[in-house]
Amino acid sequence: MSKIILKDYKQDLLDTVSRVTSHVHQTPVLTSSRINKLAGAQLYFKCENFQKMGAFKMRGAINAILQLTDVQKEAGVVTHSSGNFAQAISLAARNLGIKAYIVMPSNAPQVKMEAVKSYGGQIILSKPTLASREEEAEKIVQEKGATFIHPSNDYNVILGQGTAAFELLQKHPNLDIITAPVGGGGLIGGTSIAAKYFGQHCKTIGAEPASMDDAKRSLDAGKIQFNDGGVTVADGLRTHLGDINFPIIKQFVDDILLAEEQQIIDAMKLIWQYMKIIIEPSCAVPLAAILANPKLFKDKKVGVIISGGNVDLENLPF
Amino acid sequence: MSKIILKDYKQDLLDTVSRVTSHVHQTPVLTSSRINKLAGAQLYFKCENFQKMGAFKMRGAINAILQLTDVQKEAGVVTHSSGNFAQAISLAARNLGIKAYIVMPSNAPQVKMEAVKSYGGQIILSKPTLASREEEAEKIVQEKGATFIHPSNDYNVILGQGTAAFELLQKHPNLDIITAPVGGGGLIGGTSIAAKYFGQHCKTIGAEPASMDDAKRSLDAGKIQFNDGGVTVADGLRTHLGDINFPIIKQFVDDILLAEEQQIIDAMKLIWQYMKIIIEPSCAVPLAAILANPKLFKDKKVGVIISGGNVDLENLPF
Repeated sequence: MSKIILKDYKQDLLDTVSRVTSHVHQTPVLTSSRINKLAGAQLYFKCENFQKMGAFKMRGAINAILQLTDVQKEAGVVTHSSGNFAQAISLAARNLGIKAYIVMPSNAPQVKMEAVKSYGGQIILSKPTLASREEEAEKIVQEKGATFIHPSNDYNVILGQGTAAFELLQKHPNLDIITAPVGGGGLIGGTSIAAKYFGQHCKTIGAEPASMDDAKRSLDAGKIQFNDGGVTVADGLRTHLGDINFPIIKQFVDDILLAEEQQIIDAMKLIWQYMKIIIEPSCAVPLAAILANPKLFKDKKVGVIISGGNVDLENLPF
Repeated sequence: MSKIILKDYKQDLLDTVSRVTSHVHQTPVLTSSRINKLAGAQLYFKCENFQKMGAFKMRGAINAILQLTDVQKEAGVVTHSSGNFAQAISLAARNLGIKAYIVMPSNAPQVKMEAVKSYGGQIILSKPTLASREEEAEKIVQEKGATFIHPSNDYNVILGQGTAAFELLQKHPNLDIITAPVGGGGLIGGTSIAAKYFGQHCKTIGAEPASMDDAKRSLDAGKIQFNDGGVTVADGLRTHLGDINFPIIKQFVDDILLAEEQQIIDAMKLIWQYMKIIIEPSCAVPLAAILANPKLFKDKKVGVIISGGNVDLENLPF
């Protein structure tokens, strides 16, 4: 993988937008006067829960696959994920007519395996450890010649995720701040590139669960930190930053705010109740952080990336 | 109230559209490739769950109030409802700067009373019988000079509800069929006027729970029939037709289909899962009827009025 030096972020994102746009939904931007009143700010929700397969991850997956050579495409792609990226790679690959191998831990929920299968992904089971996952993925690379695509620590994935914020800024060019949840760092990295080069003095503020504050600690320490255990309802945000996205985040992300578990659950419920849309707990973290820091956002125009809507309806946190 | 004879439905609906449009959201029309595949048809969902106060009822309420004289507006409006119409009248009245009296049964859920209060409605409690509700409403009419507005059996309410289907047909003029749930008859009545005069050979098909099949029996018998007990998850559809909307329904509604309780719950869950939007059980009845009658809808372009999204998130049927 290439080092992030001397990259032309602005041109790279523009190229990504023209490459990706016809393959993804241009999702709507919703607002809620009731939530605006609670926040004391103007919030613009970019609804990636309405994206193909139900999450922004489709953008990065399709961009990474579109960048492969014909020989690489012939051999297919592989990733390890038990979440949205597994579905995104499966669907993106199917839409482009290539093979996708998905390494999933043997204890992954049946419903997630079914989803991957429904999008045409071929599942390879690993032991439920990161080492085993990586080993199984490496085996596919060796045996099939497939190209490994990382869910968040990949420049093309980062750029793909940035197209959501780019679209939001095309519609609302004068946002003061864009907020997004921080998990592996792909979304916040891409978002911060879009805000830097296509906003008018638009800041990027990340949000993560207080119990998974690795990204905040990483920014503070200037090097990547990890989570030591911890539990959160925002199950998409348990991962840590990587060497490809961290330099971007250090350069372009202005701050990372934390939200407590109950604040996340309350914010999720607010969005369900007032906006009538289904969002994952992870997407509620930015709103939770906004409501917990009213002074920071007072009277500001704030973009919020609603990252996805794949929820187990029989297992809600409220 | 005037009898429905010699009315110019087409002009009346056009007038209503120009009167109402600036007071309501022009809600989006969503589609789902996965639901289309299941249905074997092209479905266009008109999302009134995103309407102000979360349901189409806002349209009829605002239209009825806008038709009042200044003297009538001065004295305010009154209705009896424990559901969405109570909230719609409260918010519509507040937005127009007039008073709203809402008669609610003393056993109405606290959450519904809070919602009415939050929109500025003044609650008058009645005993939990229709007779007591009507009596309390009549008292307000006598004492305050307020104008009574019926939730569904009122020509201006019917026309207001019809603006949702009108908007849908402006966007998708070549629908073969529009479906809507049937409760008190206001929505299906207005929808059928829109389909008749602003569609190109567009049929109107109503849908109701099999356990509340009063509208179907009414159409069959040629006179209004009632529900004798019965239980349904689609709690917005327990009411019966009225003398103002039934003549319209007889004239313009092509058929009424029935859906079983489990079909309704399954359809509701499908929409939540695949479309990532929150809808009331009542809105799921048309999709349930479509999926239960695949031959009728095969390869057709079908509009579906998603009537509202006010759900108790702590009491879901799945």
